[in-house]
Amino acid sequence: MSTPATTLANVVEILERLRARRPLVHCLTNQVVKGFTANVLLALGAAPAMVEHPDEAGQFAGIADALLVNVGTLDEAQMAAIRVAMPAANAAQRPWVFDPVAVGPLGVRTRFASDVLAHRPTVIRGNASEVMALAGLAGGGRGVDSGAESTVAREAARTLARQTGGAVLVTGQTDYAIDSAREVAAANGHILMTRVTGVGCAMGAINAACLAVADSPLAACVATAVLLGLAGERAAAVAARPGSFAVALLDALDALDADTVRAHGRIC
Amino acid sequence: MSTPATTLANVVEILERLRARRPLVHCLTNQVVKGFTANVLLALGAAPAMVEHPDEAGQFAGIADALLVNVGTLDEAQMAAIRVAMPAANAAQRPWVFDPVAVGPLGVRTRFASDVLAHRPTVIRGNASEVMALAGLAGGGRGVDSGAESTVAREAARTLARQTGGAVLVTGQTDYAIDSAREVAAANGHILMTRVTGVGCAMGAINAACLAVADSPLAACVATAVLLGLAGERAAAVAARPGSFAVALLDALDALDADTVRAHGRIC
Amino acid sequence: MSTPATTLANVVEILERLRARRPLVHCLTNQVVKGFTANVLLALGAAPAMVEHPDEAGQFAGIADALLVNVGTLDEAQMAAIRVAMPAANAAQRPWVFDPVAVGPLGVRTRFASDVLAHRPTVIRGNASEVMALAGLAGGGRGVDSGAESTVAREAARTLARQTGGAVLVTGQTDYAIDSAREVAAANGHILMTRVTGVGCAMGAINAACLAVADSPLAACVATAVLLGLAGERAAAVAARPGSFAVALLDALDALDADTVRAHGRIC
Repeated sequence: MSTPATTLANVVEILERLRARRPLVHCLTNQVVKGFTANVLLALGAAPAMVEHPDEAGQFAGIADALLVNVGTLDEAQMAAIRVAMPAANAAQRPWVFDPVAVGPLGVRTRFASDVLAHRPTVIRGNASEVMALAGLAGGGRGVDSGAESTVAREAARTLARQTGGAVLVTGQTDYAIDSAREVAAANGHILMTRVTGVGCAMGAINAACLAVADSPLAACVATAVLLGLAGERAAAVAARPGSFAVALLDALDALDADTVRAHGRIC
Repeated sequence: MSTPATTLANVVEILERLRARRPLVHCLTNQVVKGFTANVLLALGAAPAMVEHPDEAGQFAGIADALLVNVGTLDEAQMAAIRVAMPAANAAQRPWVFDPVAVGPLGVRTRFASDVLAHRPTVIRGNASEVMALAGLAGGGRGVDSGAESTVAREAARTLARQTGGAVLVTGQTDYAIDSAREVAAANGHILMTRVTGVGCAMGAINAACLAVADSPLAACVATAVLLGLAGERAAAVAARPGSFAVALLDALDALDADTVRAHGRIC
Repeated sequence: MSTPATTLANVVEILERLRARRPLVHCLTNQVVKGFTANVLLALGAAPAMVEHPDEAGQFAGIADALLVNVGTLDEAQMAAIRVAMPAANAAQRPWVFDPVAVGPLGVRTRFASDVLAHRPTVIRGNASEVMALAGLAGGGRGVDSGAESTVAREAARTLARQTGGAVLVTGQTDYAIDSAREVAAANGHILMTRVTGVGCAMGAINAACLAVADSPLAACVATAVLLGLAGERAAAVAARPGSFAVALLDALDALDADTVRAHGRIC
């Protein structure tokens, strides 16, 4: 077994930079998870901001350290904001994450996703179905497949990474960080993370925060998977049901430290 | 005292089907409670989704197992989404719940409620004032009455149930599940449920989830009242103040089981 | 050291009136904090409502006991609602609070803030940068200053108070309640309050609730700073990390009583 392209030492470095630099993440995300996403970023040590007016979103994309685009509850006003924020982030050399929630089965967001891809997101974070649907739009994949094999999603992710020049984080029981040349698997996490709304969406926000301080998109993806997964494991150790687990998850993000990452992070 | 039209055995059956089938509930609900509503559904064992773009809401109403329409923060964009979702749910034979928040005193939503009623919601869930206001729109009630007697709301509920062909859940200290021919009273619950935002709105979402697996609208209403009320009682047994109560309520929804329903459910 | 213009006895009186009268606060606030704001008001003993449709917001401003205008995620629809709510609140002699989130660096909200000021909010609540930016709009201040000295913000606050005829609450490590003639400093609070999203925004909502029952805008500002600050201190005594702190803060608002205010309130 070879050494992974990104190591736990890199994850520790990203965590320490997050706490030192406190990156400001501009979140254009869905209406269900805005509060929880902001609390996740604050707990981890980053700073959130949601600026949705189309005439402010472009200006703010250049002020913030990173941008998150999540299409979970996409509407016309938010599409207008995203359309100006993406090129503004690129012009200001700010990294950004695209979370293609439910792209594939739903029409408006699937068509919109093609436009988003054309702006070349630094990172795409999605589950296997979403990543395959996106790759289908990009002309190199198979489209949605409900019985999605991880292997297929990994091929789709590599196709997307080649197209964007960035990285893709395919999330599931094992998370895969993939760029055009490399792949790292991360195995931290807990099933209770699927019982709280917004954990997946908050992962995109964490990814944006990590991007603001990481040396590469791949390293940011690996750090995201390990840090959130570890916090989930720690939270599950003290809370067995979803209400108290959500609270414990925020506490665990705040409590994350280098020793925990080194001792319990699982990447290969 | 006669046997209620729906028994605790029916409530148990609905709970077990919820956990087994995990119905997907399309929530077109208000901006204050979206996150909490999603967490309530996840804690109970159902799956939430909020799809608000008018060009996606109709498509999604046919994919989801049930629909919730809550007008608490109604705006033009959401009205457009609701207008396409209702007939789409009906065409796909998906049950749906209408929660007429603050209908009566406020103009836009009261006029809109007439349109909603014309689509014949499977269940209407509201407090006494809202149910009476709705019945007034339907031509058979007295309109809003701030000193609302439960008896009057029950008559209004029966009028509405005859018009829609479905059921009405009138909520308060005692909850009444009413259809054109039958009435069941449910007496579970705790006063702390009124100190957390969104508990009433989440009740509409639970009702939609129950409808997706129940044998009748009336049975779904009774199960909703008993399951949420029991969770409230259990939560109040471990948390005496509203912040910790809200967390404990989610944990209690997750912990609900057949034995608890049989031992502590109160219907007549 | 002279007696402050508002005493802890005044704070106690406001708290007791809040619990007795349960003022209804109309919150036109940002999308990130709606649920938390509602829960803060409920925990303290007030009642929240969010009515955002422009054709209902004016009507509701006259029904509610106080109004909150927070521009954190301002969009066109919300601007339309705020434009009708402000004059409606004034016409019905309802007090209202303006929270100028991020006014200064961002264009749309900064221009909009000039319109809001023209309606003379009863209270303006902001941090030093926001208050100075607002005063700059009003022609009497220096505009945004990132290394904002409290002293400068206090001068800007007094300029604003003279213009509106109301009061200004400048929040920070020490909070300053300022009207055209008087100033009271309040020193309660805890650093964890900055690690939970919406604590500052909820402060505006508490201020609106206090205004509904207070004898003067200045007294409402002092009560707001003391009550929320004390709840933060109490919460930090039982919760050391942000997830559990947010829960404990709601519990502490519910638990606040006259003895706690008298024993631990810090104003001068």
